[in-house]
Amino acid sequence: MLAFTITYSHVRIPGDGLVFRFPMANSDSLDELLATAIDAAKRAGEVIREGFYKSKNVELKGQVDLVTETDKACEDLVFSYLEQKYPEHKFIGEETTAAEGVVELTDEPTWIVDPIDGTINFVHGFPFVCVSIGLTVGKIPTVGVVYNPIMEELFTGVRGRGAFLNGSPIKVSSQSELITSLLAAEDVPNHEKSVLDAATDKINSLLFKVRSLRMIGSCALDLCHVACGRIDMFYLVGFGGPWDVAGGAVIVTEAGGLVFDPSGKDFDITAQRVAASNPQLKDKLVEALALGQPM
Amino acid sequence: MLAFTITYSHVRIPGDGLVFRFPMANSDSLDELLATAIDAAKRAGEVIREGFYKSKNVELKGQVDLVTETDKACEDLVFSYLEQKYPEHKFIGEETTAAEGVVELTDEPTWIVDPIDGTINFVHGFPFVCVSIGLTVGKIPTVGVVYNPIMEELFTGVRGRGAFLNGSPIKVSSQSELITSLLAAEDVPNHEKSVLDAATDKINSLLFKVRSLRMIGSCALDLCHVACGRIDMFYLVGFGGPWDVAGGAVIVTEAGGLVFDPSGKDFDITAQRVAASNPQLKDKLVEALALGQPM
Repeated sequence: MLAFTITYSHVRIPGDGLVFRFPMANSDSLDELLATAIDAAKRAGEVIREGFYKSKNVELKGQVDLVTETDKACEDLVFSYLEQKYPEHKFIGEETTAAEGVVELTDEPTWIVDPIDGTINFVHGFPFVCVSIGLTVGKIPTVGVVYNPIMEELFTGVRGRGAFLNGSPIKVSSQSELITSLLAAEDVPNHEKSVLDAATDKINSLLFKVRSLRMIGSCALDLCHVACGRIDMFYLVGFGGPWDVAGGAVIVTEAGGLVFDPSGKDFDITAQRVAASNPQLKDKLVEALALGQPM
Repeated sequence: MLAFTITYSHVRIPGDGLVFRFPMANSDSLDELLATAIDAAKRAGEVIREGFYKSKNVELKGQVDLVTETDKACEDLVFSYLEQKYPEHKFIGEETTAAEGVVELTDEPTWIVDPIDGTINFVHGFPFVCVSIGLTVGKIPTVGVVYNPIMEELFTGVRGRGAFLNGSPIKVSSQSELITSLLAAEDVPNHEKSVLDAATDKINSLLFKVRSLRMIGSCALDLCHVACGRIDMFYLVGFGGPWDVAGGAVIVTEAGGLVFDPSGKDFDITAQRVAASNPQLKDKLVEALALGQPM
């Protein structure tokens, strides 16, 4: 087993001109980290696939139990697989956080896992479900694996080494105008009146400016769809936690896209606010969103 | 080549108590009709698939040409294939209607074809695209074939003989409450302010009542997703024409679902208004939609 080696790299952060040192994995270990994350995702994918096809045949109460059990089983499986290889790493997962409370993200190499992104889809048999595995180093998304076991699509990205769909390189779209662009958004999980009214008002104002809107019910896959150019831009405010974006963020940036706060500021993986697009559309999307303040 | 035989059947139309005679195909010819429609759909699917993967590599102007050419080529291909087998039948297609004006739907056996449903998805490489082929007899959807050549999903339905996905029987979901149900809707093609405001107001009011919302950009596939239970209910007002619903309608009803006007009245294939759900949800959806008048 290859031990994980932390080296330091001087990196210029685009936009603010800062140059600073942050810990990076070396090339060999990046390959190893990616391979390990893919292995873990494939194993979780088998469990998801089994539950996905079983879900339709159980009663509603049983469906709720099934999603909870599958979510928990997948997270345990991914964590134990990664922990065996990298016992010194930190771990943040949706299920563990729900059970044990928030774990602060540090500069240490940290695996951030959403065992099933798209749980409503999972219950209903709608095929956009995935496991999302991201590794941050110095809080920067460095390895990302998003695997949809129903559609057999494996999205991967490693910082500085490109993004791939089932092993083939992917890149963001080249659309440069909002009016010819396809926007992805999501129904917000919080259906309180003020939140929902603000969200649909925003959607309404955007629809006058873009070509069309898609909502598929998976934040991690929305990011991957931007990465492979199926969708030109995406935004979401008020999602569950960093596990929704940790895998997809590096896949977008390695596909030539940008991940940013919907206000246009730098992306903060812990902020529960994300937007993504190709470089030509970022400023136009930010202006159209007008989301300087949290919704 | 098996000639198409028109026989007459006495059918009670649910809801209004009327019993009337309308022309029906006999069982043998239904098999033949379905097989012919599947052949035509598969051939069109090859053309769609080729264009779909090519689309990403051409400029915007080229994409518009590509979708127009592919749409036209697919409709010509489907019509000439069906016409060769059934020269006495009538034909209504999206492209032909756009070029030559509206053809009135009669009681004669009529093939209604959407060569590419989801043209925006086609241009952007978003995988929900399909060819939709429906045969009406006495204006009643009798044979339906909806084929998504990207996801390799072939939905079929024949009146009185069940609905299938890739040859396996499908049925609608068993959800009985709005709050646990997944709703499909679509961004309306008409982005005029009054139309868009009414559409997003409707979406807003529905979001308080349902579990979540999906928008995939293909009316024919929305219907098929209701049929196979991935989606619990769907509505759309103001779509292009009968070609968006002719294939999907019989697939929904043969999967045990209901297709109806969003007001709750009988479905009219020419009205550009459609809703679909399992039987338990119909009244609840109609009440939540409150769409007695056209939007």
